[in-house]
Amino acid sequence: MYPEPKFCSACGHPVSQTIPVDDSRLRHVCTNTGCNAVHYINPKMVLGTIPVYGDQIMLCRRAIEPRYGFWTLPAGFMEINESIHQGAARETLEEAGARVRLGPPFTIFDVQRAQQVHMFFRAELLDLDYAAGPESLEVKMFREEDIPWDDLAFMTVSKTLKLFFEDRRAGRFRLHSGDLFDATSWPAEAFHHPG
Amino acid sequence: MYPEPKFCSACGHPVSQTIPVDDSRLRHVCTNTGCNAVHYINPKMVLGTIPVYGDQIMLCRRAIEPRYGFWTLPAGFMEINESIHQGAARETLEEAGARVRLGPPFTIFDVQRAQQVHMFFRAELLDLDYAAGPESLEVKMFREEDIPWDDLAFMTVSKTLKLFFEDRRAGRFRLHSGDLFDATSWPAEAFHHPG
Repeated sequence: MYPEPKFCSACGHPVSQTIPVDDSRLRHVCTNTGCNAVHYINPKMVLGTIPVYGDQIMLCRRAIEPRYGFWTLPAGFMEINESIHQGAARETLEEAGARVRLGPPFTIFDVQRAQQVHMFFRAELLDLDYAAGPESLEVKMFREEDIPWDDLAFMTVSKTLKLFFEDRRAGRFRLHSGDLFDATSWPAEAFHHPG
Repeated sequence: MYPEPKFCSACGHPVSQTIPVDDSRLRHVCTNTGCNAVHYINPKMVLGTIPVYGDQIMLCRRAIEPRYGFWTLPAGFMEINESIHQGAARETLEEAGARVRLGPPFTIFDVQRAQQVHMFFRAELLDLDYAAGPESLEVKMFREEDIPWDDLAFMTVSKTLKLFFEDRRAGRFRLHSGDLFDATSWPAEAFHHPG
């Protein structure tokens, strides 16, 4: 969640909340009449992967807050000057020292209270030559029955894993998007032409 | 594209670019030693729809800059306190006065020079009872042969329409993600279990 801006990042004067002309929402607007910059707050994207090798999934144990010591899929904030594919692969390399062949987006979840959108891609590990990066205490491969469900770091991670195993058991994957607790699971037919 | 922050939005002091401890990238960091806030810049999401009614697609002619007077699919910045599905539907309602049944995500494009990610959903118009909103000069339905290709507002709109018609002709839709000029088109098989 963003801290509310108190000062204008363009000129340093205080901001106040008003509805700009041609807008319908309260925004943080600079009170300096020579500036009047509007400071929008928009959700940030978190990109991650579900790195698979055979029947095993890679998880990382976090060496940073929030959720120090808990397990997560490799994921992190998208940076400028990178693509969504590059961002997901970069986080996997940084956190787990692991190289992947990226598959399609699998989950795209709203995390409204944190002002984030989390997107996880399916991915195949190219090898098992991985190593914990500075943000991870350890990196480990898990079979479904060994997933530490009670020690997962984030709801979007546990939901993504749950949907992954459900879909894998069903023998087909879907794209899941929207609310974390009420996501739409798009069947293969949704990608077909209705007519 | 974001303007570079010059002042700290938390305390109003000047910021300078340095690499924070435990980071590997230049960030805008507050020079006030009592504050030291780090101001990250991350891509913003733009959400839109491809509103379909029979064989026709809805386009809006822009009443605002940039690209005043050019045609676009309804789309705009995702707001906080909304889901990606709500955002896409809201933009369609605001710009075209149109109600849709949302389909799956169709294109997810990186627009790196603008520090944006554009996501377009397939959508079915519930009726033809639409009307231009304040940000549109007019709203109109187009058959493929009538699309004003030379007067489209944005590359992600023309690419999304091009892929839409290609997929429709092929009798099946894919999910297209990544670079605007070199997107990965995920076939139905990509959603199946490889094993």
